Amino acid sequence: MNFKKDIVNLSPPRFLLVIFVIFILLGTILLKLPFATAGQISILDSLFTAASAMTVTGLIVVDTGSAFTIFGQLVILMLIQIGGLGIMTIAVLIFLMAGRKIGFKERLIVTQALNQTSVGGVVALVKKLFLFSIILESIAFLLLSFRWIPEMGMKEGLYASLFHAVSAFNNAGFSIWANSLSGYVTDPIVNIVISFLFIVGGLGFTVIFDLWKKKDIKQLSLHTKLMVVGTFFINILSLFVIFVLEYDNPGSLGGFTVFEKLQASYFQAVTPRTAGFNTIDIGSLNESTLFFILLLMFIGAGSASTGGGIKLTTFLALIFAVFAFLKQKEEVIIYRRAIMYSTIVRSLAIAIIGLFFVIIGIFILNITEDAPFIMVVFETVSAFGTVGLSMGLTGELTAVGKIVIILIMLIGKVGPLTLAFSFANPVKANIRYPKEDLLTG
Amino acid sequence: MNFKKDIVNLSPPRFLLVIFVIFILLGTILLKLPFATAGQISILDSLFTAASAMTVTGLIVVDTGSAFTIFGQLVILMLIQIGGLGIMTIAVLIFLMAGRKIGFKERLIVTQALNQTSVGGVVALVKKLFLFSIILESIAFLLLSFRWIPEMGMKEGLYASLFHAVSAFNNAGFSIWANSLSGYVTDPIVNIVISFLFIVGGLGFTVIFDLWKKKDIKQLSLHTKLMVVGTFFINILSLFVIFVLEYDNPGSLGGFTVFEKLQASYFQAVTPRTAGFNTIDIGSLNESTLFFILLLMFIGAGSASTGGGIKLTTFLALIFAVFAFLKQKEEVIIYRRAIMYSTIVRSLAIAIIGLFFVIIGIFILNITEDAPFIMVVFETVSAFGTVGLSMGLTGELTAVGKIVIILIMLIGKVGPLTLAFSFANPVKANIRYPKEDLLTG
Ligand SMILES: [K+]
Ligand SMILES: [K+]
Repeated sequence: MNFKKDIVNLSPPRFLLVIFVIFILLGTILLKLPFATAGQISILDSLFTAASAMTVTGLIVVDTGSAFTIFGQLVILMLIQIGGLGIMTIAVLIFLMAGRKIGFKERLIVTQALNQTSVGGVVALVKKLFLFSIILESIAFLLLSFRWIPEMGMKEGLYASLFHAVSAFNNAGFSIWANSLSGYVTDPIVNIVISFLFIVGGLGFTVIFDLWKKKDIKQLSLHTKLMVVGTFFINILSLFVIFVLEYDNPGSLGGFTVFEKLQASYFQAVTPRTAGFNTIDIGSLNESTLFFILLLMFIGAGSASTGGGIKLTTFLALIFAVFAFLKQKEEVIIYRRAIMYSTIVRSLAIAIIGLFFVIIGIFILNITEDAPFIMVVFETVSAFGTVGLSMGLTGELTAVGKIVIILIMLIGKVGPLTLAFSFANPVKANIRYPKEDLLTG
Repeated sequence: MNFKKDIVNLSPPRFLLVIFVIFILLGTILLKLPFATAGQISILDSLFTAASAMTVTGLIVVDTGSAFTIFGQLVILMLIQIGGLGIMTIAVLIFLMAGRKIGFKERLIVTQALNQTSVGGVVALVKKLFLFSIILESIAFLLLSFRWIPEMGMKEGLYASLFHAVSAFNNAGFSIWANSLSGYVTDPIVNIVISFLFIVGGLGFTVIFDLWKKKDIKQLSLHTKLMVVGTFFINILSLFVIFVLEYDNPGSLGGFTVFEKLQASYFQAVTPRTAGFNTIDIGSLNESTLFFILLLMFIGAGSASTGGGIKLTTFLALIFAVFAFLKQKEEVIIYRRAIMYSTIVRSLAIAIIGLFFVIIGIFILNITEDAPFIMVVFETVSAFGTVGLSMGLTGELTAVGKIVIILIMLIGKVGPLTLAFSFANPVKANIRYPKEDLLTG
């Protein structure tokens, strides 16, 4: 038996899954070491924490800051960097170089997506992406240090800045503070730096490249245009909705000035897709706000980004398909480009499969957990979208509940990513069947 | 101004909507007459009742049996017959004969769906359908009379049988008893007759014709095969799920023998798509069962039937499309027939638009109603699917809440029906845009 050869021969989706499982198990062992935790934590809690970090979700069963030592926290940070930035770069390289099972067409599409004509060019670009990310994290680290060193001293300030810069860029949502960033709800530096990091991380690396290289807006790819415009509008809409719904809520924005309300609404508007930090208490929000956040968490950030969810472009492709149908248009046209039929079907598949796992998760947790329906739905969608926002259920999960959430985080992270790599390469049918219409609706 | 001409010139979807609005308003006036109600009811409650009856939903804000006189109840029954059987036959005739705006292709597809080669043939068939339905309702009426006359005397027994036969065939879910059919949870005649009526009514008239006319199973249309097989399997699955989840629940099946449990599970399994009668208390079910019923209510019954929801074939078309994508198939094949691309897109549109209105409804009701999230979701989906099952929120709705539910019932009834008639007749594009792929997932 040749284990190494077996690994290389795995199909890319399985390969990705194997990487995740290996790092999660490695993380579990490291987090279970005596000097990783302040007290004792169960093996299940180590596993949960490792899975949450590696899938950059940020749901927690024990408080990161108090339950883990600095060593434990650095293990978590390492998993975050691997699960976020690492996977995005490694995955592309693997797909392009190692996988024998990947065809010419897939390579072509990846290279096209990156606007490169050769595999060599892609490798060079991925290296640049890696460098760009590290530089961005470093700048953010410096900016946060200016804010936090004066407050908590050199050592603690530097450490807090490092941890949150890495966690934010990777859309991980892990914080060393039990109330996340609630202590900085009206702090401009923390709000701006952290949200800038996770928004850029959530745009996706093809978008970052595209914006980086082109000066003329007309040259931007359809994908880039959709992501930039879509992200802008969905964030403005979310800001407005949360501001209006929570304006008077004493548990959230009630006590703030109008400017502070705007600031807190902004942060709560951008964090559900899929950063997962919070500056106000999620459990105190109105049910209508929670429901709205649920939708944002399911939609998620950009493809090939550090974020999760079904992805913004998947959502928009489906919406545009519906509009094209209502206008009786033959094709789905966005910005003078016709969307390929296979893109619509892929989007449909990603949304339905995502919905399927969310439904299964809610169904099981409704049986195993003694909690209100909205809490069960919220934590499940948060896990699927690898968001990490919590109404408080995760900390009180039963053992079965923890395992379900672990699986959903894994599916939420690996699922859309592997489906996204299922590029249109249909098997030619040997038999032709007559076409027939169905009555629907 | 020529009002009559304006009406005839309306597009078919608007025409349908106008019919519904006119009958709902007419019903509201009739139900507000002094001799229609036992006491006083508000105009909003009359409107709600008329809308619920005309859309064959069955959600109630006042108890049908005690709040309305026999006259009022007969008005409700008339609205049910018009909104269910009436609309199904009228709509088809309107589409075929009156509408000048409907093209040759639409007629062709309707006639194909009915396996007729001419419009005249369709008219004859619709007449037969009408007759078939009346005969079926009459037989059920007789069978129920055998059960209920001995129990409650001639007059009351006949009336109860008439009311429930009409309500059942039209999937209306209205009952003259406050606890619906809970008094007959273990009664075989009531269970069998009522469920047979609403299952047949929910298959859709094209299916009934197809089954009626053909002796050879191979000649059945794809639509008929899917509906029959799909209905069978989804009912078996639902029976199993409800039986297992509620087996020990003292509020539902706990006190029954195994055979009685099976009977009650069967009824509760088939009623959510979209009959709306209940023999066990909905509010006492487990949250996992309620969640499962939610999904059934959203899916609903058959196209061109008396039932609601996005429709079983819409749901199945989407599921098959996902499987085809996962298997990298170029086309969606069911029973050796290729599903048209336009069918998939139409199904997608119906599901997403349905989801959109459900989401808007939940969002508003979460603001206006002071009720647990699951109750809000349940009543909204029940209204959209024109199901009528209730956890009890409808009886306690605020005025705004009642208006929202009225609108959702109307959208749930008219929406999918009109979208279903938007047959594939795309506008040819004058400008050709280059195709471009999007990263999704
Ligand atoms: K996250
Ligand atoms: K109903």
